[in-house]
Amino acid sequence: MEAVLSAGAGESTRPTQSTPPLTDLVEESLREFFASRADTVRAVGGGYTDAVAALESFVLRGGKRVRPVFAWTGWLGAGGDPQGSQAPAALQAAAALELVQACALVHDDIIDASTTRRGYPTVHVEFADQHSAQQWSGGSAEFGRAVAILLGDLALAWADDMVREAGLDHATLTRISPVWSAMRTEVLGGQFLDISNEVRADESVESALRVNRFKTAAYTIERPLHLGATIAGADAALVDAYRTFGTDIGVAFQLRDDLLGVFGDPDVTGKPSGDDLRAGKRTVLFAVALQRADETDPAAAAVLREAIGTDLTDAQVERLRSVITDLGAVEDAERRIAELTDSALAALDGSTATEEGKRRLREMAIAVTRRDA
Amino acid sequence: MEAVLSAGAGESTRPTQSTPPLTDLVEESLREFFASRADTVRAVGGGYTDAVAALESFVLRGGKRVRPVFAWTGWLGAGGDPQGSQAPAALQAAAALELVQACALVHDDIIDASTTRRGYPTVHVEFADQHSAQQWSGGSAEFGRAVAILLGDLALAWADDMVREAGLDHATLTRISPVWSAMRTEVLGGQFLDISNEVRADESVESALRVNRFKTAAYTIERPLHLGATIAGADAALVDAYRTFGTDIGVAFQLRDDLLGVFGDPDVTGKPSGDDLRAGKRTVLFAVALQRADETDPAAAAVLREAIGTDLTDAQVERLRSVITDLGAVEDAERRIAELTDSALAALDGSTATEEGKRRLREMAIAVTRRDA
Repeated sequence: MEAVLSAGAGESTRPTQSTPPLTDLVEESLREFFASRADTVRAVGGGYTDAVAALESFVLRGGKRVRPVFAWTGWLGAGGDPQGSQAPAALQAAAALELVQACALVHDDIIDASTTRRGYPTVHVEFADQHSAQQWSGGSAEFGRAVAILLGDLALAWADDMVREAGLDHATLTRISPVWSAMRTEVLGGQFLDISNEVRADESVESALRVNRFKTAAYTIERPLHLGATIAGADAALVDAYRTFGTDIGVAFQLRDDLLGVFGDPDVTGKPSGDDLRAGKRTVLFAVALQRADETDPAAAAVLREAIGTDLTDAQVERLRSVITDLGAVEDAERRIAELTDSALAALDGSTATEEGKRRLREMAIAVTRRDA
Repeated sequence: MEAVLSAGAGESTRPTQSTPPLTDLVEESLREFFASRADTVRAVGGGYTDAVAALESFVLRGGKRVRPVFAWTGWLGAGGDPQGSQAPAALQAAAALELVQACALVHDDIIDASTTRRGYPTVHVEFADQHSAQQWSGGSAEFGRAVAILLGDLALAWADDMVREAGLDHATLTRISPVWSAMRTEVLGGQFLDISNEVRADESVESALRVNRFKTAAYTIERPLHLGATIAGADAALVDAYRTFGTDIGVAFQLRDDLLGVFGDPDVTGKPSGDDLRAGKRTVLFAVALQRADETDPAAAAVLREAIGTDLTDAQVERLRSVITDLGAVEDAERRIAELTDSALAALDGSTATEEGKRRLREMAIAVTRRDA
């Protein structure tokens, strides 16, 4: 989806005078923010400067900036002017979402005991490795985990600083306050439900959809759009349309992720084939397969329950894929994605968003729900 | 120090019409804040409501509210009027410090693998116990840790919400922004240095003082006072005086804690005798003892290095106490505490704080540096 992530409204009218890609502007904003904390960090001293530098590297090497891009595009579609005086503040507030995301990833990697992220060791592994290499006393894993907990906390605290210091006026800060609060409260709730469903082996489609709704849809698309729209001072009708669009596309985005987690091509996704099955993720895809198996094919249900969360061979993954497909769960997921995309686009088309905003959001909706990585 | 923590300026002039103790007002503010999040939490659903209720219980059963009391008293001493229109906002911003503290404690208890806190199981143990009792799948310790990481994050996010929503005007919010940012950046830095010094077996007095400065003094006294003064619109001279007072009393407070961690009466402190020695804490007290032993008594130095961080018997603790005392480390700590208290009180006395503010801060300075629990 990189292609749709260009920055301003300018490039369509002035194709020769190109604006930097939005992702570059987000990174620049993050880099400036880290620079603004340097004095305080240096005053604490010791190894803190190096630890914070590791956090900065983690943030700067990161991802597609999906959340800032949705926030910025929501702002644009609600009439925000990329050449106007509010643009730098809107950009900084949007970029701050990447610091919330840094906390979520760093802490999630501890929770999931993940060892790599974006082709690098996860933060807790990086510091555990440092501990081993230096032959420090105590446990390396414990040290790595402790540092990662603290750096995740720092990212979360700084996300708030970054929004508060963005330069938004008081009325705007007051308007976005409940949106910002809900976004963080919901994503932490979604993460809680995710681990809670996993340990309780909750097999219901409803529970999986609930995690999908709060851990992904609200956090990744709905609330970022809501934030952007609210910064621009959108009315309630546009906010409602955005939230419908964001929730539906967000859920569809995660359903696509579920499919890629089982059927994705490792060469394209960069993850081992069938990763979600080995990890025991309680996805909607898996819950639907299980529900259908319970109704029609008890033997298939037994196969699914025995296999999930175990160290599967590639042949076993291949077998499970057939079972899931034969149960109609893939078709069901594709149908859900298509329906959600339709309802999302209908809400968008019927909204008062600018034509440019609609065009961009439509492209992004397609990009995040039809991707193969 | 409970006795000095009464609320307003009212009680000295109207002794019969008593104001509720400040700690009660802080708790009420926290309770109201949790109530204000209930709808969002309930919307996420699942077990999230219960998990958040566990966090609320943790926060409400907590401690002496030292940080809010310093913030409030700083505000009062800078001319804040407890009967005035800013008082409710100042109180809520002060109370928000307890949510930062909740994050710090919940995450610290994971890092230190502590099993009890304030006479109850720590949050990660509480959820690990729930996991075992329910015979859920996966590891109980991992589940408890995951939930505690997320609930600590939630407390930290909500601390920001609580300040932002306190009702402070834009100019005040803008003024306190760098103070609020520094406080969180410093305490996380202090915690980082603490674990980092421990694994590196850093024995220097300077390193121990640095942890003391940022993990305790800045976070517990200096920045809360700074925050309160800034809310009241104090001038730079008063802020400087408060910060000197806060840093010095904060360091002294921790030095007193160091002494209690080795010499405290278990019946009064509620902690096992010699707890800090068993836990291997790199306190200033221990660093001074070691430095002196290296200079004058290599045999004592060897005893200290062998004993620290091991599972000592009471007799061994008694022996170490004698060694530490004989090396003059206790005398050194008492001398530092006395000097820091003197310099703190001199800064306070020379400041433009109100007489009532000075009186209260003086009492609090004495209470936190001469306590026996």
